[in-house]
Amino acid sequence: MTGIDDLPIRDELRGKSPYGAPQLDVPVRLNTNENPYPLPEPLVARIAERVVEAARNLNRYPDRDAVELRTGLARYLSRTAGLEVGVAQVWAANGSNEVLQQLLQAFGGPGRTAMGFEPSYSMHALISRGTGTGWISGPRNADFTIDVDAARKAIAEHRPDVVFITSPNNPTGTAVGAEAVLALHDAAQDARADTAGALVVVDEAYGEFSHRPSLLPLIEGRPRLVLSRTMSKAFGAAGLRLGYLAADPAVVDAVQLVRLPYHLSAVTQATALAALEHTDTLLGYVEALKAERDRLVSELRTIGCEVTDSDANFVQFGRFEDAHAAWQGLLDQGVLVRDNGVPGWLRVTAGTPAENDAFLDAVRELMKETSA
Amino acid sequence: MTGIDDLPIRDELRGKSPYGAPQLDVPVRLNTNENPYPLPEPLVARIAERVVEAARNLNRYPDRDAVELRTGLARYLSRTAGLEVGVAQVWAANGSNEVLQQLLQAFGGPGRTAMGFEPSYSMHALISRGTGTGWISGPRNADFTIDVDAARKAIAEHRPDVVFITSPNNPTGTAVGAEAVLALHDAAQDARADTAGALVVVDEAYGEFSHRPSLLPLIEGRPRLVLSRTMSKAFGAAGLRLGYLAADPAVVDAVQLVRLPYHLSAVTQATALAALEHTDTLLGYVEALKAERDRLVSELRTIGCEVTDSDANFVQFGRFEDAHAAWQGLLDQGVLVRDNGVPGWLRVTAGTPAENDAFLDAVRELMKETSA
Repeated sequence: MTGIDDLPIRDELRGKSPYGAPQLDVPVRLNTNENPYPLPEPLVARIAERVVEAARNLNRYPDRDAVELRTGLARYLSRTAGLEVGVAQVWAANGSNEVLQQLLQAFGGPGRTAMGFEPSYSMHALISRGTGTGWISGPRNADFTIDVDAARKAIAEHRPDVVFITSPNNPTGTAVGAEAVLALHDAAQDARADTAGALVVVDEAYGEFSHRPSLLPLIEGRPRLVLSRTMSKAFGAAGLRLGYLAADPAVVDAVQLVRLPYHLSAVTQATALAALEHTDTLLGYVEALKAERDRLVSELRTIGCEVTDSDANFVQFGRFEDAHAAWQGLLDQGVLVRDNGVPGWLRVTAGTPAENDAFLDAVRELMKETSA
Repeated sequence: MTGIDDLPIRDELRGKSPYGAPQLDVPVRLNTNENPYPLPEPLVARIAERVVEAARNLNRYPDRDAVELRTGLARYLSRTAGLEVGVAQVWAANGSNEVLQQLLQAFGGPGRTAMGFEPSYSMHALISRGTGTGWISGPRNADFTIDVDAARKAIAEHRPDVVFITSPNNPTGTAVGAEAVLALHDAAQDARADTAGALVVVDEAYGEFSHRPSLLPLIEGRPRLVLSRTMSKAFGAAGLRLGYLAADPAVVDAVQLVRLPYHLSAVTQATALAALEHTDTLLGYVEALKAERDRLVSELRTIGCEVTDSDANFVQFGRFEDAHAAWQGLLDQGVLVRDNGVPGWLRVTAGTPAENDAFLDAVRELMKETSA
C-alpha cells in the first residue's frame, strides 16, 4: 500500500496529522464553540425559499463578487458595530479560515512572516504555514492578557508583515481593548516604516459575545487594519461556512487578486442572506448565551475552579495537574469539552442551560474524585 | 484614497487584475462553458428537502470529511468511468479550483514547479502562482494536440514536481489519449526518479462530454496520478462549486493535511447529494449537449470557419485576423463568446438549440461583413 511518505509531498508536511477536534458521539458536546440553538423554523423555511430560487439558476456561475451578500453583511455591521460600513469595505468567503488564507496569500507568503500572541486560535499559525508564511509566536501574560510592552518589543524585533490580534481570544476568552490594538497597530507600522507597512488582522470571530463594543470603528482611517468575522457563532451557522472581513476598500481589492474565482457557492450566498434577514432572533440567542456564559464563569469559580474572564461563548477553566486526564474524566461522564493543549486548562462551550448543568455536575464529580 | 499599491501587498501582485470573464447582460451567453439547462424541477424540490434537513443542524459544523458526499461521488465514478472507486479514493472541495489549490499546497509550493501544456485552463498557472509554485509552460502542436516527444523532452529538462494534463483541453476542446497520458506520467516519474516522483494531475472537468472513455482507470496502480472532476458542467451546477478528485488513498490523506478544516458547507454537501440522486436525468442533458456540440462543429465548418475537434461542451473556432474584433462583432449581435487570448481563435459554449442557432446566425453575419 502507498503511504503519504511515498508521494512527492512537501517535506514540511511529512509526519503531520490533519487539524481538527476529535468528533465523538456523546450526549453533551461542548467542544467546538458551536451555538447550541438550532436555527428557528421560520428561518429554515426562508432558507428553503432562497435556496430554491438559487437552485433554479444553479447551472450558471454564482455572483463572483457576492455583491448582495456583502451588502447585507455591511448593513449588519453598520447596525451593530457603530460605524457606517459600505459594500466595498466587506469581503466574504467559505469561513473566516478562507478569509484569513486569502489575506495571507496577498499580504504574507514566502519570504514574509506573521505574528500572533499565543495561546490563540491555532489556525492562524496553520494557515500561515499553509501559505508559506513564516510564523512568529508572540508573548502573553500569565493571565492570558496581552503584555503590550512585550508585544511591542517583539514586533520591533521581528518586524512581521502580518499581525494577528484575536479578540475575544480563543481558547482563553480574553478580550483586547482598543488602546492595546492601536498600540500594536502603530508598532507594526513603525517596524515596517521602510516598506508599505504591516497588515494587522483583528479576528473577532466571537465579537458578538463580548462585554465590550466591537473594534470595528478602528478601521476608520487605518487602511492596514482588517477586522475578520464569522456567521458560525453568533448566527448559529457553523455548518454554513461564512466568514467575512471589513476593511479599507483597497484591502478588498487586494484579496480579489488571490481569491479563487467563484469561490462562494450560490447556495451558500442564498442561505447566508436568509440568515441575515433573521438577525434579531439570532442576536436574541446570543444574549441568552452570554447569560449562560456568565453563569458558567461564576458557578465554576464557586466549585473551586480557576476561570479566565470570558468575552466569548466559551470559558477556559482549570487548573488541572493533568488537563488531559480531566478531559477524559468529563468525557467518561458524557461531556465533551476541548483540550487545546494549554497546560493545566480546558475549554468549555456555553451550551443550553441543560447542557451547562450537565457539564457543571460532571465538573463537581471530577473535583470530588480528584480531591478524594 | 488608499490604493492597493499603498498596502504591504506582495510584490508580484502589484499591477495585477483579478481573473474572470467579463459578465455582460446579453441575450445569448455562451462564454463560460455553463450548461444551458436549468436543473429539473424535481431536483430543485429534492435540493430544498435536503437543504432543510441540513439547515435544521446548521448550528453544528458540517462533516469535515464529507463522507456521505464522497461515497456518492465514488459510486458515480464507479458507474460511469469503468473502475471500482472507493470513498477513500475521492476528495471534494469548493470547485475543482480549490481541489487543485489543495494539491498544489501539498505537492507544489515554494521551491517547486508545475508544468502545463498551453494554451490550457489558465487557472492552472494562476493557482500555481497563488501557491508560490513556479510555472513552466509546455509546448503543443499547431493543431493544439500535445506533441508527446516535445512534452517528454520539456519534462526531462525542467523536472516539474506537478504536471497538468487537461483532457478535454480548455479552451481548445482537444482530448488527450491514454497512451499520451501514460507517456507523460512515466516521463515525469523518470525525471524525478531521485526523489519521490512527480504528481500528474489529469483535469477532466469536461470529461463527460468526450467521445472517449474517462482516463480514470489509469489511476489504478499509479499513486502519483490524480484525476480531477467537477459538477459544474455535466451536472449543470456551476453555481454549486463542487469539484472532486479520484486518486490513490494516500493522495487523499495528503490533501487533508492542507485543506482548511470544514471547508465544505453543509448546504453545499446537501445540494450535491441531491444532484447525484438525479444523475440519469442530468446525463441525458449531456447527451443532448454533445449532439449540439457536434452540430456546432459541422455547421461552423460549413460556414467556412476553422474548427478544432472538440470533446468538450464548447468549440474553438477561427481563424480571425483580429479575434477580439470578431468577439466584439458577435457581441454587437447579442451573442457573448469567449476570447481566451489564443491568437486568431474564439471559444463558444454549446447552448440550447435556439442559442446555438442565434450564435450561428451571428457568425454568418460576421463572415459576410468581413468578406465584404
